[in-house]
Amino acid sequence: MVKTWTVGYWPIPFRGNFVKVILEYAGEEYDVMETSEVIQLKTAAVSAQPVPFIGPPFLLHNESGFAISQTAAIVEYLVRKFGFVPESPELAALAQKAVLDCIDVLVEITRHNGNQMWTRDAWSEFRGPGKRLDQCLGVLEELAKRHGLKEEHSTGFFLGTEKMSAADFAVYALFEQLARCMPPLIHDLERAAPRVWKLCQRIGENPKLQAFSNAQSQRWGRSFCSGQIEASIFSMIEQDEKAS
Amino acid sequence: MVKTWTVGYWPIPFRGNFVKVILEYAGEEYDVMETSEVIQLKTAAVSAQPVPFIGPPFLLHNESGFAISQTAAIVEYLVRKFGFVPESPELAALAQKAVLDCIDVLVEITRHNGNQMWTRDAWSEFRGPGKRLDQCLGVLEELAKRHGLKEEHSTGFFLGTEKMSAADFAVYALFEQLARCMPPLIHDLERAAPRVWKLCQRIGENPKLQAFSNAQSQRWGRSFCSGQIEASIFSMIEQDEKAS
Repeated sequence: MVKTWTVGYWPIPFRGNFVKVILEYAGEEYDVMETSEVIQLKTAAVSAQPVPFIGPPFLLHNESGFAISQTAAIVEYLVRKFGFVPESPELAALAQKAVLDCIDVLVEITRHNGNQMWTRDAWSEFRGPGKRLDQCLGVLEELAKRHGLKEEHSTGFFLGTEKMSAADFAVYALFEQLARCMPPLIHDLERAAPRVWKLCQRIGENPKLQAFSNAQSQRWGRSFCSGQIEASIFSMIEQDEKAS
Repeated sequence: MVKTWTVGYWPIPFRGNFVKVILEYAGEEYDVMETSEVIQLKTAAVSAQPVPFIGPPFLLHNESGFAISQTAAIVEYLVRKFGFVPESPELAALAQKAVLDCIDVLVEITRHNGNQMWTRDAWSEFRGPGKRLDQCLGVLEELAKRHGLKEEHSTGFFLGTEKMSAADFAVYALFEQLARCMPPLIHDLERAAPRVWKLCQRIGENPKLQAFSNAQSQRWGRSFCSGQIEASIFSMIEQDEKAS
């Protein structure tokens, strides 16, 4: 039977998880498109695409035929659909900002989606106390801190909202895969964004998200973004581990 | 007197125009922050920033002290504030997608914000009939086409809405600066996105936007993204012109 939604993405967590964690948390039924079909649609003429797009993820609503691409636009669509948008327009905007900040971390750690491979020199500017990754995580930490998220006795959500917002889904999608696929990075999350990391651990106690996380580990192991750039990141982290 | 808004950005069009064209069109009063202050805030500790951010643009609401960064989040905030969001959640999401698609064009033409300079080999894969830039523009063209935008007797807006949406502001912000700062690219806009280019020309007849465009030309000439990468792009286009 056709499910409500279909997610088109590569067989990795990465950007796809920003969409999938919302569907999982909301208890929505969705199919994941076969990779061969994703490739076929990505390379098809724009007129043959369900929504004109350059790269996945994209999301299809199977009954209506509605389709949408661009991770942050899909996230915003789903949080509005499922009632996870803060009432205050200011908080709603900050939630979106946090989503974009999280996606930027994916872009930076993969050197713009594998555009360049890591060298030790470049990596040493990226990872380490006060370096670029810490700065990116620190921006998230500071935003949550200003909205009342505590480091000790952690309760509540990223922007101090009553329930999850796009910001919570996004930091969870990001931190969960960083920690699971590259466990040494947990040290970095704890150092640069302790509040947000504790929040993510709390969010991850949700049974649906826990099952989703386990299923990804079983299917894909520690695969994060795949390709040469994944090997490059993993090799940098391995060298860091040996040196420490 | 302090104006309603302050925009923090570099003295170039680029991402800043995505924010400014909405403020201009809506007739809002805003100040542009001195570059020295933008630099100071960008390099400040996150705790000292008006909103924690990695890079500009950012927008301040001076009376309330509210601040927001991330171009697409600022755009969404402003279009909601000023009533430019389509009623249908699907169209609202597609408008956001178009904003993100437009920002991606800025990222691609600057090789990820100047991360690498252009070589002839790379540029020949980027510019030309059916190449990457055409594909990016073609995605916008196809989306508008599906929502009824015509090539001949152009009327109406990008998504067939009653008034401007974020999609219209974004394509205008992108196409206007590409055409004004790099006039040979008009040929590419006409080839790959004739409907959207005509729409942008119509939008540009708005007296406020016309005045804004003229003011930028007078102040900054053809400066687009500045820096070495601007020189690299301009040199590629100049070589294309000589060869044609």
